[in-house]
Amino acid sequence: MATTVTAPRRSLARILFGPPLSTADAPHQAISKRVALAVFASDALSSVAYATQEILIVLALAGAAVFGLSIPIALVIAGLLIIVTISYRQTIYAYPTGGGAYIVSRHNLGLNVAQVAGAALLTDYILTVAVSISNGVEQIASFAQELHPYKVQIALAVIWAITLINLRGVKESGRAFAIPTYFFITLMALTLGAGLIQLLTGTLGAVTPREFIEHQAQPLTVLLVLRAFASGCTALTGIEAISDGVPAFKEPRSRNAALTLTVLVAILTTTFLGITLLAHQVDAYAFEGMTETVMSQIGRTIFGEGALYVLLLMATAIILLMAANTSFADFPRVANFMAQDGFLPRQLTYRGRRLVFHWGIVVLAAMASLLVIMFDAETTRLIPLYAVGVFLSFTLSQSGMVRRWRAIGRLRPGEHAELHGFPVQHDPRWRLKMFISGFGATMTGIVMLIFAVAKFREGAWIVVILIPTLVFIFFRIHSHYKDVARILGQGTRWPNIRPRPVKTLVLVDDVHAGTIHTINFAKSLGVPWTAVHVAIDPDKAERVKQKWQERIGDEAYLTLLPSPYRNLADPVHRYIEDLLKEIPQGFIHVIVGHLVMDNLLEQALHQNAAIALNLALQDLDRATVTTVSYRLATRENGEGPQRVLSVSP
Amino acid sequence: MATTVTAPRRSLARILFGPPLSTADAPHQAISKRVALAVFASDALSSVAYATQEILIVLALAGAAVFGLSIPIALVIAGLLIIVTISYRQTIYAYPTGGGAYIVSRHNLGLNVAQVAGAALLTDYILTVAVSISNGVEQIASFAQELHPYKVQIALAVIWAITLINLRGVKESGRAFAIPTYFFITLMALTLGAGLIQLLTGTLGAVTPREFIEHQAQPLTVLLVLRAFASGCTALTGIEAISDGVPAFKEPRSRNAALTLTVLVAILTTTFLGITLLAHQVDAYAFEGMTETVMSQIGRTIFGEGALYVLLLMATAIILLMAANTSFADFPRVANFMAQDGFLPRQLTYRGRRLVFHWGIVVLAAMASLLVIMFDAETTRLIPLYAVGVFLSFTLSQSGMVRRWRAIGRLRPGEHAELHGFPVQHDPRWRLKMFISGFGATMTGIVMLIFAVAKFREGAWIVVILIPTLVFIFFRIHSHYKDVARILGQGTRWPNIRPRPVKTLVLVDDVHAGTIHTINFAKSLGVPWTAVHVAIDPDKAERVKQKWQERIGDEAYLTLLPSPYRNLADPVHRYIEDLLKEIPQGFIHVIVGHLVMDNLLEQALHQNAAIALNLALQDLDRATVTTVSYRLATRENGEGPQRVLSVSP
Repeated sequence: MATTVTAPRRSLARILFGPPLSTADAPHQAISKRVALAVFASDALSSVAYATQEILIVLALAGAAVFGLSIPIALVIAGLLIIVTISYRQTIYAYPTGGGAYIVSRHNLGLNVAQVAGAALLTDYILTVAVSISNGVEQIASFAQELHPYKVQIALAVIWAITLINLRGVKESGRAFAIPTYFFITLMALTLGAGLIQLLTGTLGAVTPREFIEHQAQPLTVLLVLRAFASGCTALTGIEAISDGVPAFKEPRSRNAALTLTVLVAILTTTFLGITLLAHQVDAYAFEGMTETVMSQIGRTIFGEGALYVLLLMATAIILLMAANTSFADFPRVANFMAQDGFLPRQLTYRGRRLVFHWGIVVLAAMASLLVIMFDAETTRLIPLYAVGVFLSFTLSQSGMVRRWRAIGRLRPGEHAELHGFPVQHDPRWRLKMFISGFGATMTGIVMLIFAVAKFREGAWIVVILIPTLVFIFFRIHSHYKDVARILGQGTRWPNIRPRPVKTLVLVDDVHAGTIHTINFAKSLGVPWTAVHVAIDPDKAERVKQKWQERIGDEAYLTLLPSPYRNLADPVHRYIEDLLKEIPQGFIHVIVGHLVMDNLLEQALHQNAAIALNLALQDLDRATVTTVSYRLATRENGEGPQRVLSVSP
Repeated sequence: MATTVTAPRRSLARILFGPPLSTADAPHQAISKRVALAVFASDALSSVAYATQEILIVLALAGAAVFGLSIPIALVIAGLLIIVTISYRQTIYAYPTGGGAYIVSRHNLGLNVAQVAGAALLTDYILTVAVSISNGVEQIASFAQELHPYKVQIALAVIWAITLINLRGVKESGRAFAIPTYFFITLMALTLGAGLIQLLTGTLGAVTPREFIEHQAQPLTVLLVLRAFASGCTALTGIEAISDGVPAFKEPRSRNAALTLTVLVAILTTTFLGITLLAHQVDAYAFEGMTETVMSQIGRTIFGEGALYVLLLMATAIILLMAANTSFADFPRVANFMAQDGFLPRQLTYRGRRLVFHWGIVVLAAMASLLVIMFDAETTRLIPLYAVGVFLSFTLSQSGMVRRWRAIGRLRPGEHAELHGFPVQHDPRWRLKMFISGFGATMTGIVMLIFAVAKFREGAWIVVILIPTLVFIFFRIHSHYKDVARILGQGTRWPNIRPRPVKTLVLVDDVHAGTIHTINFAKSLGVPWTAVHVAIDPDKAERVKQKWQERIGDEAYLTLLPSPYRNLADPVHRYIEDLLKEIPQGFIHVIVGHLVMDNLLEQALHQNAAIALNLALQDLDRATVTTVSYRLATRENGEGPQRVLSVSP
């Protein structure tokens, strides 16, 4: 009988999420460089889809005449990419067990600074989802213009589809991830190749605009160039993924991971520069609110509006989808680390039935959805929020490495030491490495400041406020958990387990079979008990009193509690408060019957007073509440299914 | 100490809704005809704001040349108004205690047919709110055009403001209601008067359009005329309000109510015809999606764009607001009747702390909000859903009266009889009365059919599906309550209250002061008990086991339940299932500790396993769950506030 109630709920969960996985099922498998490139590349490569376009949209404020500036800006960004890559290769060698910004900060800068990195990372992952999905929808809507009015709805549907897939748990089979990444790389190669040939043969045309181009006439200021540069810096997002994922590589892990990072950045730099060059050559247009992406303009200019054009946009949309999906692995993992350290709610460390951190996944999806709704799924409006978090985590991670090299520099050859509780050992090349990490940290720090200042009014202020707020909340959570642990721990010094007086009180709504069952439990405890009815409806109270005296009067006395304000819990609360004063050390044991239905809809037709009372009385020390459930069950009795009370009193 | 937790919550409720009212506070006061007119008129009069305009919008599909048809259409509607009024005067005399469609159907056509009337009425009240508020916003937006993009948001804000006011409880002081009604009537009189003078002196101008008028070129078909007529029939909505409210009148109640209805309909007919005539004379334009209402066009043509024009639109918006407010009294009252009869959830009969049926108010507001969102707060898109329910309730109410007169006709003079359990007595004029009610029922029935067919594709289909669905749901709810009452009643035949064996089980998460408190309660019951820990984290389980043996091992044995799927409730569920088999008549008593925080935010940082377990185990017959709460309380101990455990174990 018991399973009839829970079976539907469980099978719905089974359909949606699949059968539960045992803790022993957690998979571990090492992947080759080729697969690893595909797994870790999507986040980094996907930024090619919007980085160039966002540079142009800012420059467009000063008119299309200054679009040529996109080339030097892109070259500076490429230089930055190379600096950060060299710095991150060192992190990969130093952390063969995975060196994300939270771990590196925690090891080298301490638990408190790590919370800043944590706040930056969590913000960044949420924005990765919002930006990638919004831009993916924009790519698709570039060739299916009729989808434009539904951008927000489509983006939300996609986010929750990814959420569902991740709640089911994505197997670490890199092969499935490899297909879209190599599909995208292939189409990028085709586009850049075809574009280059057309350029060299003089057959590269110019974009025929599909929409009315909005001309602007702001003067070209340094701030505007910095804003364009800041927008383009989103090209760097995602390159830290490999340093996080070193343990997934085959041995020699660090070497393979570093090599993969180098290849990835080479591809990324080439594509980013190539797309920027082509955008300039085909006279791509750009302005905030345009309905066609720059990628789409390049595609149809080079390929015409045929299959290759559609494939290019599809590949772009899919790589963006994969990038968003990466966050669904990263956010819950970082949240789990932080929750284990006590800076986030403990629930984030629970692995669900499918071994995934389901709370983290749901929180990420909810936050990303909120952003998509707030910013109308417009990439250009989301970008100003994006890169502050990314560059803050870059800066902290590399600063952590500087601290590490300095500590190592103090060691003699062969000597070991501890830094924030983690071992470090001598390295003769620490000076060079410290310089590289320091240079990287300085560069990314400067970009972060440029970004925060240049994009402040456009939205970066939100993140500038948000990250310290998050850090503050993390510390509040941490001090809460410490307090609770300390207070609960104190009591264990007094092992005074001893019986106290107990007064038992049965709450009676009406006199029926369920009441008899509830009273049976009270009587089974073998102690004296009394009953109470809250007289919300005075007429009903009289009827209940009469039925009680006819049928149960011999067992116990029924007290009627007046309730002039028609409230159930308040009179009971006051009554128990008075009783508690009579037994200063004892317990008041309240017993409540609870009618349980087979389904939630029918359950909602009943008062469910037991649940309300449990909540209303929980603030009363020494008052305990027992729920005695009885169900309406469906039983087969030869004449077809019939509903009966599950307990026969 | 106890009040520290609940006080903030209560004072928020006090600020929002005011102090609680005692059941004895329910007011009863009779009102004069003049005030009654104001109280009951708003719903009926407010339809003048849109009825003419909606006729024109339909006619506009065949071009402005056929706008002249609005005059004969309005005359037919005026005739219909008079027929229905004569019929409803009879209902007023027959039901001095109030004769709404639900009551009249219930008395004369039976409980089952009454559910159809109930479904029609509830639908109608929801639509009254959605249509009135949407149209009110359109009136205001006609002179404040910049509000147009925010129509939906404004409409939602207004709906929830009215909701809040009604949750506080509106005193039956008709005087406050009188001001806006007479304000509206005055401005209507001014408009019609000024318009008539200008017409007679030949100084009435034509509207200068403010927007681009969309010309249509459909042929004028009979269906189109019927659709225009159906739209205009919304002028009849609200005239049934007085028959509902007879008890509020001074004695002789029925006479005063009937007189008030006649005056109301006279004003309504005059205004409706006058506005329709003026709209035609000033060449008012109309098309779906226009941004200026016909009322606004008439106003600024007659008065110019001065103060009187703005006052007219404000008066119109306010009367529409009052009409919506009427539904906030009617919907919860009808829902209460239906819930008392067992066809709606019982919660709808609860009066809240302010003596209002708070659930009904909230459901109405939620449904109306949904409609406003779905139909973009466009009156023209909501109208096709509106009148089917209204005319269905008219038809049922009058058919009920026909049935009543026929039953009366069978009685001899002086004889009494019962109809569906309610008394009726002889009336010599039953034949005439039956004819009048029958004629009214036939007319409104025909209009209902015209409406359902002519407006089917525009949205009436929704209501045509919705009302039978609602009736089906009502009957399902009714049979559910009957089942439950029958099944629970059966048990009272067996007065077998007797003690059964009880096994007590303490659920242990960790060993701390809260655990000691929980164990103290178990021990106080004076029966043997054992303890159980669910080993979600095997390492933690070992530590708990060890602490248990050091500190509590002498008291009871701690069983570790394995949980390979990291679930808390499932292993406990299975364990109890097994234990229950060992004691086929007995109870398993599960005791769970519950850490309570001062606020919900901190509470959310904890697992709250007690709540989850209460739900997870409720399907197990003979398993009872006791929650033992212990709080982190803030206490003053001389050195400032300090957090301590509320119970000292």
